[in-house]
This record gives sequence, C-alpha cells and structure tokens, in this order.
Amino acid sequence: MISFKNDYSEGALPTVLQRLVETNLEKTVGYGEDEYTRAGKEAVKKVLECRDCSVQFLVGGTQTNLLTIAHSLNSYEAVIALETGHIATSEAGAIEATGHKIIEVKNYGDGKIKLDDVKKAFELHKNNFHKIQPKMVYISNPTELGTLYTKAELEALYEYCKGVGLYLYIDGARLAYAIASEKNDIKLTDYKELCDVIYIGGTKCGLLFGEALVVFNENISQGLMYSVKQKGALLAKGRLLGIQFEELMRDNNYFKVGEHGNRMASILKKGVVETGHKILVDSYTNQQFFIFNNKVIEKLKERYLFEICSKLEKETVVRFVTSWSTKEEEVINFIEFLKTL
Amino acid sequence: MISFKNDYSEGALPTVLQRLVETNLEKTVGYGEDEYTRAGKEAVKKVLECRDCSVQFLVGGTQTNLLTIAHSLNSYEAVIALETGHIATSEAGAIEATGHKIIEVKNYGDGKIKLDDVKKAFELHKNNFHKIQPKMVYISNPTELGTLYTKAELEALYEYCKGVGLYLYIDGARLAYAIASEKNDIKLTDYKELCDVIYIGGTKCGLLFGEALVVFNENISQGLMYSVKQKGALLAKGRLLGIQFEELMRDNNYFKVGEHGNRMASILKKGVVETGHKILVDSYTNQQFFIFNNKVIEKLKERYLFEICSKLEKETVVRFVTSWSTKEEEVINFIEFLKTL
Amino acid sequence: MISFKNDYSEGALPTVLQRLVETNLEKTVGYGEDEYTRAGKEAVKKVLECRDCSVQFLVGGTQTNLLTIAHSLNSYEAVIALETGHIATSEAGAIEATGHKIIEVKNYGDGKIKLDDVKKAFELHKNNFHKIQPKMVYISNPTELGTLYTKAELEALYEYCKGVGLYLYIDGARLAYAIASEKNDIKLTDYKELCDVIYIGGTKCGLLFGEALVVFNENISQGLMYSVKQKGALLAKGRLLGIQFEELMRDNNYFKVGEHGNRMASILKKGVVETGHKILVDSYTNQQFFIFNNKVIEKLKERYLFEICSKLEKETVVRFVTSWSTKEEEVINFIEFLKTL
Amino acid sequence: MISFKNDYSEGALPTVLQRLVETNLEKTVGYGEDEYTRAGKEAVKKVLECRDCSVQFLVGGTQTNLLTIAHSLNSYEAVIALETGHIATSEAGAIEATGHKIIEVKNYGDGKIKLDDVKKAFELHKNNFHKIQPKMVYISNPTELGTLYTKAELEALYEYCKGVGLYLYIDGARLAYAIASEKNDIKLTDYKELCDVIYIGGTKCGLLFGEALVVFNENISQGLMYSVKQKGALLAKGRLLGIQFEELMRDNNYFKVGEHGNRMASILKKGVVETGHKILVDSYTNQQFFIFNNKVIEKLKERYLFEICSKLEKETVVRFVTSWSTKEEEVINFIEFLKTL
Repeated sequence: MISFKNDYSEGALPTVLQRLVETNLEKTVGYGEDEYTRAGKEAVKKVLECRDCSVQFLVGGTQTNLLTIAHSLNSYEAVIALETGHIATSEAGAIEATGHKIIEVKNYGDGKIKLDDVKKAFELHKNNFHKIQPKMVYISNPTELGTLYTKAELEALYEYCKGVGLYLYIDGARLAYAIASEKNDIKLTDYKELCDVIYIGGTKCGLLFGEALVVFNENISQGLMYSVKQKGALLAKGRLLGIQFEELMRDNNYFKVGEHGNRMASILKKGVVETGHKILVDSYTNQQFFIFNNKVIEKLKERYLFEICSKLEKETVVRFVTSWSTKEEEVINFIEFLKTL
Repeated sequence: MISFKNDYSEGALPTVLQRLVETNLEKTVGYGEDEYTRAGKEAVKKVLECRDCSVQFLVGGTQTNLLTIAHSLNSYEAVIALETGHIATSEAGAIEATGHKIIEVKNYGDGKIKLDDVKKAFELHKNNFHKIQPKMVYISNPTELGTLYTKAELEALYEYCKGVGLYLYIDGARLAYAIASEKNDIKLTDYKELCDVIYIGGTKCGLLFGEALVVFNENISQGLMYSVKQKGALLAKGRLLGIQFEELMRDNNYFKVGEHGNRMASILKKGVVETGHKILVDSYTNQQFFIFNNKVIEKLKERYLFEICSKLEKETVVRFVTSWSTKEEEVINFIEFLKTL
Repeated sequence: MISFKNDYSEGALPTVLQRLVETNLEKTVGYGEDEYTRAGKEAVKKVLECRDCSVQFLVGGTQTNLLTIAHSLNSYEAVIALETGHIATSEAGAIEATGHKIIEVKNYGDGKIKLDDVKKAFELHKNNFHKIQPKMVYISNPTELGTLYTKAELEALYEYCKGVGLYLYIDGARLAYAIASEKNDIKLTDYKELCDVIYIGGTKCGLLFGEALVVFNENISQGLMYSVKQKGALLAKGRLLGIQFEELMRDNNYFKVGEHGNRMASILKKGVVETGHKILVDSYTNQQFFIFNNKVIEKLKERYLFEICSKLEKETVVRFVTSWSTKEEEVINFIEFLKTL
Repeated sequence: MISFKNDYSEGALPTVLQRLVETNLEKTVGYGEDEYTRAGKEAVKKVLECRDCSVQFLVGGTQTNLLTIAHSLNSYEAVIALETGHIATSEAGAIEATGHKIIEVKNYGDGKIKLDDVKKAFELHKNNFHKIQPKMVYISNPTELGTLYTKAELEALYEYCKGVGLYLYIDGARLAYAIASEKNDIKLTDYKELCDVIYIGGTKCGLLFGEALVVFNENISQGLMYSVKQKGALLAKGRLLGIQFEELMRDNNYFKVGEHGNRMASILKKGVVETGHKILVDSYTNQQFFIFNNKVIEKLKERYLFEICSKLEKETVVRFVTSWSTKEEEVINFIEFLKTL
C-alpha cells in the first residue's frame, strides 16, 4: 500500500533524527530551560526576522490551539472561526472544553474566512451582554482545503482586527507548504506584521513532532508558560523540540520540505486533471482534493491509502496529501495506474 | 557539571532511539491506529499479565493526570490526594483547570496517603450537597519522596475504595524504580488487582517521552479516546509511542532501568550517610533526599547540579536523582568529593 | 409608554405575591428542604401526572439550561441545538463556559429543529474521535419564534433520540403559552413520555422568578443537587420557590396565564394583519413577530416599547410579547393607533 | 420548634416585602436596566460613600463568589483562602468548577487569615511555572466563626496585596452584623479603601434574597456584566433586587438588622456562659458557637433547631444564629430552659 493519506505518515527528516542521536546522552536541564531549546528558539526567530517575539515549543496542533486560545481569552470571550476550521470540526470540542465558544462563520467553498463575515459576527455580539464577546479570529494558512490567503487579504483582516481589538491567530500547521507555493505572496518574514500569534508547524513539515508557537503581541505572551504547564503541554525533555527545530531551520530545510511536497502535489494534480478527472478546489499546496467516480475509488483503494472526505451519489470527494517524503516515482506510478481505470 | 538533578536529563535508552531510526521511513496511519502502537500496547499488557485492560499511550505526566482525572469524574466530583502529591503541588492547577477540586489530606512526612485520612475526607463530604463529592483517590508509587507503599497498604486502600465507590488511580511516573527496589513487595503483575487505573511512566524510565495509561476499570476506559483528543494529548505520529514502549518492554529493559537507577541511588545514600550527613527520609528508590549544611551546599554547587527542596536555618534539604544513565563512577567521585568538604 | 417588550416586565401574579406575604414570618429550614418546597414539588408533579419524576426549583432560565446540560453530559459530550436556540444565541456562552460545545443545526425559518438535521449531526460526529460526541438535543417549546412543535414531531424526535442514546431536553420557559395555544396538541401530562427532562418556566408565566426543572430520566436526576449547589443555583430561602410554584399550580393559574397571554396575542395579530401589515411567522402563542416599514416603526416607538429583531432595507422585524398582565384595552388601543399610521 | 439554625429562616423585613407589593404591577425593562435597579445601586453607593465604584446585584452568595473569582482571574491564576473559608468548604467545588484552584492556608482557630501565611503562599507559588499563580485573596467579615477582622489587620493585608499585585475580595454575606458589633472598628465607608471588591449580603440581612457586589477596582468591573450573564446570574426581573436593596438602605434598616441580631446574640451568649457552659470562640456577632455536653444537646433538640458543627467524645460543638427576626423573648426562654437542664 502506498499512502497519500497525510503528511505525518513517517518519522522525521533523517537529519533531524540524526541530531537526536548525536545529542542523546548529553545531560541538560528539563522543561525547555536548556541550551538546545534556546538555540531552537533563536533559529525560529531568525527565519522570521523577529527579535521581539516570544517562541514556545509545543508537541501537537490541537494542544497548541487549545492552549493559545484559552490563554488569550478572558472567561467571557470567544474566538471567531470558519465553520470548517480545524478547531470547529476536528478537535473534539477542545476549545469549548476550556470554556470558550467558537463563533462559526460560513465557508463559501474556498476554505477562507471572509472579512465581511468577521465584521458581521463582531457587530452582532459586541456590547450585548446576552452574547459572548468575540476577542480573537482563528484562521489556517494554508487552509483546510489547501488554499492560500493573499497578502492583501491578511492585511485587510488584520487591520480590521487591530481596529476593533480582536487578536488574529494563524494556525500554520502546514505553513511550509504555503510559503513554498507558486501562488503564495506572503513571505515568512511578513507574518510578524500580519497577526498577533502564529504557530509554525513541525509535525506535518518534517519533524517527529513539534509546533513552534510564535507570539508577537505581548498581551498574549504574558504568563504563557503557566498555561503551557497547566494544559499538560510542557515537555519534560524540552530539548527534543529545540534540537528538532534548530535542525529544521538549518540549511533551508523547512523551505525544502515545502518545495518538495508542493512539487509532488503539482505533478499529482496535473496528472489527475489530464486523465480527465475533476478537482474540488484548485489547490497549490500539498493537499489536493479530487472527485472520482465510485468505481475508480474502489480500484484505487486496492493499492493506495487516501482520505475519503464525502460521498456524493455516484462520486466521492477524496483528499490526497504529499509531503517531504513523497517520492516522485510514487506519484508517477499513481497517475499511470489511474490512466488504466 | 555533573547532574543529579533528575531522571529526565538525557534522551532515551540507545536501543529505543535505534528503533526510531530503523523505522523512520516506514509509512503508517496516524493517531495511534497503526501496527506499532498495537504492538506496544500488547507489550505493556503482557508485562502486566492483563488481557482485559485497555492501554492508551500519552506524551507526558501532567497531561496523563489531568485527562485521566477529568475523564473519570462527573462535573460535581473531586479527587482526594496528598497535600504534597504531584497534582496538588507541581502541575500548575491543571486538575482544577478541568473543573475538579483536589481534596488534600495530610502528609505525615513519608509521602504516603493514610487510609484513615481518606476515610475521614470521604465521610466529611459524602452526601452533603454543600460539598464536592469525592470519586477518586490519587497516589504515586514511588511517592514524591521516593518511598514505597507496601502491598498490604495498597490492598487495604483499594478494598476501602471499592467498598465506597471511589476509584483508585496510581501515578507510576517512576514505577520502574519501585518495582526494582529491594524494599518493594508489589510485582508489576499485581497492579491489575490493586487499582482501577495506573500509568506506567516512560519519560523518567528511559524513553524520549511517553506514558502508558493502563485502565482496568471499564467505567473509565469508556469514551477515553475522546478525552485524549479533546485534551490535545493525541500524538499525530502515534507510532513513536508504540515503538518506544515495545522496545522498553523488550528484554527486561524496563526492569533493568529500575535496577540500575536504584543501585546507583543505593551507593549514593550509603556514601552520604557514611560521610556523616543526614537523610530526610530513608528512600530505597532513585530519589534521595539529603540534608547538608549550607557550607557544604555551596561547595557542591560548584561541581554538581541537584534540586534544592527547602532551606532551613543552617542547612538545606536537597534531592539527588539517579537514572538508567547515571554512571557508577560519577557517584563514587561525588562521594569522594563530599568526603573532602 | 406601554410595553409589549417582554413577558417579564412586572412582578408576579397578585396571589403569588400574597402568599409570600402571608408566609413571610414563618421559620423554615433552608436550601429547599422545607415543607413549602415539598408542597410546590408535589403540585408540579400533580399537574404533570408524574409520580416518579424528580423536581428541582431554580431561579432563572440560563442558570437552568447551563446546569442541566453540564450535569447531564460527560466532559467529551455535546448538545445539539438550533442555530437560533436560546442557548446558542442569548446566553453569553454559558454552555461552553461549562466545557461543552453546542452543535448548531439550521433554522429554516420556523424555529423548529428538523429530525433529519439531528440525524445528520449525530452521524457526522458519532464514533469519530476527532469530534465531540453528541449526547443531548435541546429544543424550546414554544420556540424562540413563538411556533409550536406538534405531538407527532416530538414523538418522532424522542423516538430517534432514545434509539441512539441522546437525551432530549425541552426548555419550557414559556410552556404555559404553548399548552394554551389553539394550535397545540400536546398536553402537559404528555411531556413525561416525550422527553428526558423539561423545565416548566415560572419567570415568564406569572412568578417573580423561578423555573421548575422536571427530570424523568434517572440518569440525569442522579447527583443533580450537587450540580445545583456547584453552579450557584441553590436558593438559601428555597421556600420562596416552593410557595410560588404551589400557588401557580393552584386553581389552574398556570393555564389561565397561558390563555390570557395568547388571547391578547391573538387580538394583536389579527389587528396587525387586518391593518395591512406583514407577519414574519404565523405564531399562535404570546410572541408575535411583525414586519413594519421604518416610518411606522418611528411612530410606534414614540408610544410603545417592543423589541427590534433585525433591520431590513426599508422595513424592520419586531417582536411584540403579551403576558398574563397585558390588558385588552392596551392591545385595542395599539391597533387603533396603528390604523392611523 | 424555635429555630436558631440560621439567619435565613424567614422571608424578608416586612417593609421590603411591602415595597415589592407596591411596585408589583409597574412595567419595567428587564435584566437590571430599569430605574429601580439604578436607585438601588445609588443607595448602596451612598451608604458606602463611594461614587466611582460599580455595583452589581446578584441573587445568592455562592453565585456571587464563583462569578467574582472566575471573572477576576486569568485561566492560570488562583485564589488564596482559609482552609475553613466558605469557598473552600461549603460551595460544592464551585470555584474549581470554573477552572481555578483555591490555595488553602491554615485556620488557627479564630477563622481569620494570617498575613504571614498569605505571604508564604504567595512566595511559594510566584514565578514558578510548575505552580498556579495566586492573584486574589478571599476573606469573610465576619468570618465563618463570627469573629471580626480589625481595621489594622485589613489595612496590613490590603497593603501587602496591593504591593504584590493580589486582589483582595471580601465576602460580606453577614457584613451588617460586623458593622454593628461592639468590637468592630471598621465603618462601612472604610471598605472602599480596604479591598478591591466586596459583596454586601442581603440574604442573611433581611432580604428575600440578593447580594450587592461592589467593585472598587476597574480591572475587575471591566466586562463584569458578561460574566454575570454567562454564569446564569442575571435576574430577568432585575428590579426585584433594586427595590429590595433600596429599601434595605433606607432609614438605616441595614444597620438596624445588624444591631438587633447582635443584641440577641449577646443576650444569648451571656446567658449560656452564666449558666456554666463553654463557648468555642468569643464571638461578638450573630453567630455563636457553644460547647454543650451530649445530654444537654439531646434535651435542647426536643425544643430547638440549631446546627451541629462537630461531635467530641462527650460534648458537641453547636452554632446558634440570631437575626433581625429573632425575638428577645425566644432568647430569654431558651436561657431559662437551659438553666433547668
């Protein structure tokens, strides 16, 4: 079975694992107060060209989202997100379990939140004591559908947020694939001007595990360590995160991960379209959404792993994901096989 | 600097890391639904000789405690713990953050909860609607002071708990050191009869990270996966935990970790006592608590890392911890140095 | 200013207040363990013809909803409600603040949840550990739009709920107006067969304050008193609730409240329609939703208090509410004035 | 049966109830936005001689405590209280249910928190990310044992709190009895200089129900209305609270309540002591704690209601409470009866 199921099917970039082996027997202090953690944080700051930001390494995405949101909000405040956002659909109620409502706004099919909907949601709730008070907007880039925000879109969204006192939080679980996309116009160094807090995902971009939460707004970084510990998110051997992120940011590894994954996805999409099949959205990152008829699906399932998104009458929407570890040969063989169906 | 600061100063047992390297490029499904996770769970069940229990791998101790407790209790229920218990003092309010009170009972100096105090706490609260209702007892073995419960103590405690409808939850972060202790009379295979749920710690016993939560009571295992996800505790690359635990349970590695750590601690304690210094409690596991006068402390600090527990007028209580990675030579050198002070 | 703003503009039915005066200096035990509370509960059980149910008096609606839902759900469970449901829009995130997500389903304009949407929501979430698990359905009768469920609708909904293990919870804040409606086909005595838990509202039906939570399902009543206290909902002078509900249930007072309120609403609707204005939904209870053009609105505002629901381009949707205290003369005068505009 | 069980055994001061009757049929807007609520708030401010404070009327004490604390703290912050404090022992885990730990400090028998213990608790936790961060100190005056803080004690405590950034919150459920006590040296008008937030209890001081939360610190008043609604604490007919508090503050009613209750308690204590019985603490407010031998207890139980606090071998500690409604004759008859035993 060849897997296009996700971008976390393997371990880590070999050099990342190599660094863990090399440093294995060194003794360091725990809980992220060691030199490797410090160096990893510096590496992240450097690639973002941000001196004043605060970096916190965490283990996984849901953990990062729930603690960032719970930490940033007062008890009577809510976060605005797309109805298809990861926190709204795929985190088992993790945000609400910390006591905060997600105000969901409409997805028009491209997976991107619309500024106008954010405005409407804000105005509907604000200063009405029968309603929860919005304080943060959550988006992902790339989105859950592999699409990208433009720089102009983010600028407009953040300008609005700042104007009315909303935080903007970007989930960058797959940010490497956004940065490397041919359609992207936002540099990694731009983000410090475009949001209050972002997480640079490692799990889906070549690490064993790990997310780097980067906080640009001091209101959010204040007291953050207490929330990290309280939510069970403080790794005893914190250095494991520092070592991995330092290596990920070395030699453009992070960018190479994105480039390779996107290139594989691009070959895949081209092949699928040329073979006469439909795509759900025109994605330029490592997540591709195809619509195959059900007979094709049955045949593909015999040889490939991939995710079923939804079943239509005679067709099925599926997600194929590439990564740093996808081999060009695997993609080409897939297309060849598809042509035979 | 030689460190006796804790048992999580290094990476992992070399063979554990080796297994991660060997399996790195294999593709598996995510979230613990892979074959390595299955095999790791089987290995844990085998060493506990428990077929009907349910095993869930988690990343860290606070995470494990908060999710186990929050999952097991109804919203109006509380957990009883020692006032010096890890959940009461060292987890930044993690349990309360899930909405549950810790009813704290007295530590008489040996770090062990007294059945009589549990009874009193239970009776004080039970059926009084002005008070939170106790539903679980939390203990650690070894305790936070390195001491051990006897089998008779645990039997009596669990018998009481079952009789009144309390769950008994054992935090086994350092259980390997309990099992291997010369003073221990509880086998790993006994635990399935002695509690409702236990976690077999990996982080402090030779793994990069990881704890195996073993649930013997079906009331607790029901729906557990939803809580794991909701608390941000579900590792995307779940196999990393399965691979590590499978290796830890292979060839008695887990037992060897405990034996080595305890042997180093034993040499250390003997040396400290023979040199004329005091011990706080008579520990037979890998945590040793000494009382040095402040001048000695200053000298020791120049060469060694260790934890300051509390400062008395002219003396200081310190904790020294050994592990699988402590070298006998390091311990002997320390004693030699101590003799010169 | 004459108010049609809501059904909680005055104090209480005069006889209710009279009973508080008569009993004022009697000494009783606190927290609802007195004879008046017992008698009030018996009166509620009698009118529902339910011997085995459990009754708990509470002060207000949001309090009742948040504690009933938080008490009934495990930490990883959610409640399904209409996107326009009171808990979704008008309780300041109270449900989420207890840790539980509200899974919102679509309002098609009549304010009633559709069984098919409940099924879809249930199936989308069930047994998927990335998603919160639905455990309860929340509805209001009358709905937020003054409309009514039919007996057949409730039967089908509850049959489905029981089949898949969902609780059905009915918010009866204005139930008196449902019971008394000419279009209603559900008797008060039917409810014990139609849901797991319901609250019989007092605040909007003639009391100073107070809601009677009636639990038919023992899984929910178990431990309920602890939740009542924990959520700050246990009135010290519990008798105030018992005395009020006993009086409300005496001499058909509860039914008379509904009948009078509905009759006033009916005259009001008839007059508005005959004057040539539009209604938003065809309500047969004490909440009426009209669409007036903006010029009419301006004139009405000079003499009357009412609620603005939403503003269209040239028109405004408003809510008019009648109650036990609305005078026929006030309604007739309003219609006369409306005719002049 | 004559009751000395508590100070909430009856309804309300007759003039309070009379005002509810007089205003019953007036129509007002809901949720505390009416004129009566405004007037009640003004009356409270006037008696406190505080123009800049913010007043919020709530229904009960546990509700007031849980919402004030939850509102004031960040998610990683805790409240310090005495181990016998009302929030620690008698609110069914209400504070922890909002996600916040109570750091409990020792009661030395007089029911008053010691500044030195507050300091130690603060220093033990502060800036240690393994521990919850203290942000508030909670005390009651009078205390749970009927004792009183001196002005010097409160000044020292509040000075310390301000210095280190802790809020001081005073639970004044029975404040009227403190104010009127012969041993009291703190005027009602002093409190604005002595704490950040206080609640002036109505339930135990002559109202049907109701507590006036008075906030002196703007950091706490900000957004408070949202928390009130979210915790289910916003009374629909808010005017009921305004009317009651306006009347309570009229004609020195509030002070008279305290004076009468204390005078009855004083006669009671004097009689008990003169009859040769022991007191637990020397209380000068309306709660009196006596130690009777068990035979006396049995006889008293036949004619009187009172609270059993704890049972010693041959004696029992009991609480007798007087109030605005206690009759002098009842107290004298009790003493006469006691003399016969």
